Amino acid sequence: MAFKITILGSSGAVPAYGRMPSAQFIEVENNYFLIDCAEGAQLQLMKFDLHMHRIDHIFISHLHGDHYLGLMGLLFTLHLNKRKNDLHIYSHKGLDEIITLQLKYSKSALNYKIIFHQLTPGKKEVIFENKFVMVETIPLLHKLDCSGFLIREKQKPRRIDKEMLPQNLSILQLNKLKAGEDLLDEVGNVLYRNDKLTLPPRKSRSYAYCSDTQYFEDIIEQIRDIDVLYHEATFMEEDADKALETRHSTVKQAATIAMKAQPTRLLIGHFSARYKDLLPVIDEAKRVFQNTYLALEGETFTIED
Amino acid sequence: MAFKITILGSSGAVPAYGRMPSAQFIEVENNYFLIDCAEGAQLQLMKFDLHMHRIDHIFISHLHGDHYLGLMGLLFTLHLNKRKNDLHIYSHKGLDEIITLQLKYSKSALNYKIIFHQLTPGKKEVIFENKFVMVETIPLLHKLDCSGFLIREKQKPRRIDKEMLPQNLSILQLNKLKAGEDLLDEVGNVLYRNDKLTLPPRKSRSYAYCSDTQYFEDIIEQIRDIDVLYHEATFMEEDADKALETRHSTVKQAATIAMKAQPTRLLIGHFSARYKDLLPVIDEAKRVFQNTYLALEGETFTIED
Repeated sequence: MAFKITILGSSGAVPAYGRMPSAQFIEVENNYFLIDCAEGAQLQLMKFDLHMHRIDHIFISHLHGDHYLGLMGLLFTLHLNKRKNDLHIYSHKGLDEIITLQLKYSKSALNYKIIFHQLTPGKKEVIFENKFVMVETIPLLHKLDCSGFLIREKQKPRRIDKEMLPQNLSILQLNKLKAGEDLLDEVGNVLYRNDKLTLPPRKSRSYAYCSDTQYFEDIIEQIRDIDVLYHEATFMEEDADKALETRHSTVKQAATIAMKAQPTRLLIGHFSARYKDLLPVIDEAKRVFQNTYLALEGETFTIED
Repeated sequence: MAFKITILGSSGAVPAYGRMPSAQFIEVENNYFLIDCAEGAQLQLMKFDLHMHRIDHIFISHLHGDHYLGLMGLLFTLHLNKRKNDLHIYSHKGLDEIITLQLKYSKSALNYKIIFHQLTPGKKEVIFENKFVMVETIPLLHKLDCSGFLIREKQKPRRIDKEMLPQNLSILQLNKLKAGEDLLDEVGNVLYRNDKLTLPPRKSRSYAYCSDTQYFEDIIEQIRDIDVLYHEATFMEEDADKALETRHSTVKQAATIAMKAQPTRLLIGHFSARYKDLLPVIDEAKRVFQNTYLALEGETFTIED
């Protein structure tokens, strides 16, 4: 099953040089999530041929305009495209009021239902969970209440070892094996030990989106050893004072968080418009954490099974 | 002096095929106006190298999302670009509340002042006027309170006829001639008759923006004989029932308004996403009003002096 992160925007507060503000489209185990939804997000979804109508959950990290101002346009487009399914929106306090007010003045009733989920500032909490995937918030440190999102696959079933498998097992028995159980005979004696017929489960993949935040080591424990970490990197180290003033991170700080949390890959984004050329940016990151990538528009990062 | 209309968006409610929703940038006599400001308007201003910081007046026709959802992002970008000048925003009731609420939740105080001007539904009124230009509303007929905008140069000064001009006239005397006055001697006798030394003023140019509206002949009197008329043309005549249902115009209806009002040129836009190919659209218009143009992204229409 796929686990893919597609970047819709890599820019900080102001769009620049074709770079758009924050939004990411995530596909994981047939779930489709949007994380942040800046102005132009719907245009990017169209441009990169992503299926906006499949999105059932939208996670907004905080209420700075460059993280949510594309939401209202997307909601109207989904309406005009005759969406019927419920849409879940997760955000800190205020977004429901903003959406409701704009619907009121446009005299529009959407032909689908929006279900708002209000995030708790400063608190790690599970906000979405189904059989395969869970999403929890990552409390960040910014000028506004701001949460990152950690998307994790749940523990997977053990894999049947086809070479060792006796013939004529029932589906019920196969499911028991996948769930880690031994197979018993009618009176309760072990027919087959589970570890003889199965292999360990595939690993559960994980992605963390950390936007916007000043350097904040509290997040490290929660994101340790994940597969892919996105961390904002608005400024270069030479502008560290500007980063602190605006409660953002430098590239070096983002890479330092990665160095300490040890994801397989680090993605950086939310670049200030002062940097036209991003080569020095990626260089600054790689000096601290080698396996870093620029999270640029249209790039898809796949986490292999 | 320039009178130029640059199209930022030609699409109806949903962006499609690279067509963006409504926004236009107008330069007239060193005044810079934005009319409507859909999602992506700031991107288009950047793309076409237009000077967003020069815009002091933004006119929003109505509060459907495809006509104003780019405003908040533009306001933040102007703020981050350190705008200081007052910004005037003209809209029907609600937009001030929408902006104020979003500023509240972003905990942002803009470093310039916004001055709201609330339009009166159904009433023609002058909303902006300076020495050279005036803007008045055009009441339209749509699902929401909706106004078009008529931009007119004021009566211009008479032109000095250099071939007939005596030497050694003072600046004061030249200004009197431009204002249409005769030149008198000290006791009040006519020294020079105005019509001997001046030529008629250059004509006052005019542009009308009519969006969104069903076919509405009431507007014709107000826009008669203007230079350029923009009229929405959301649907083709074959979808006239859809046009009526959604309170929009067909291409043929837009052209019929032009035929009756006799502007020099007609621009049409706000095209439904159902029409990928716009050749049949322009054909339908030209059958009724020959001098019609598609108002496409990046096109600039200049009204010559």
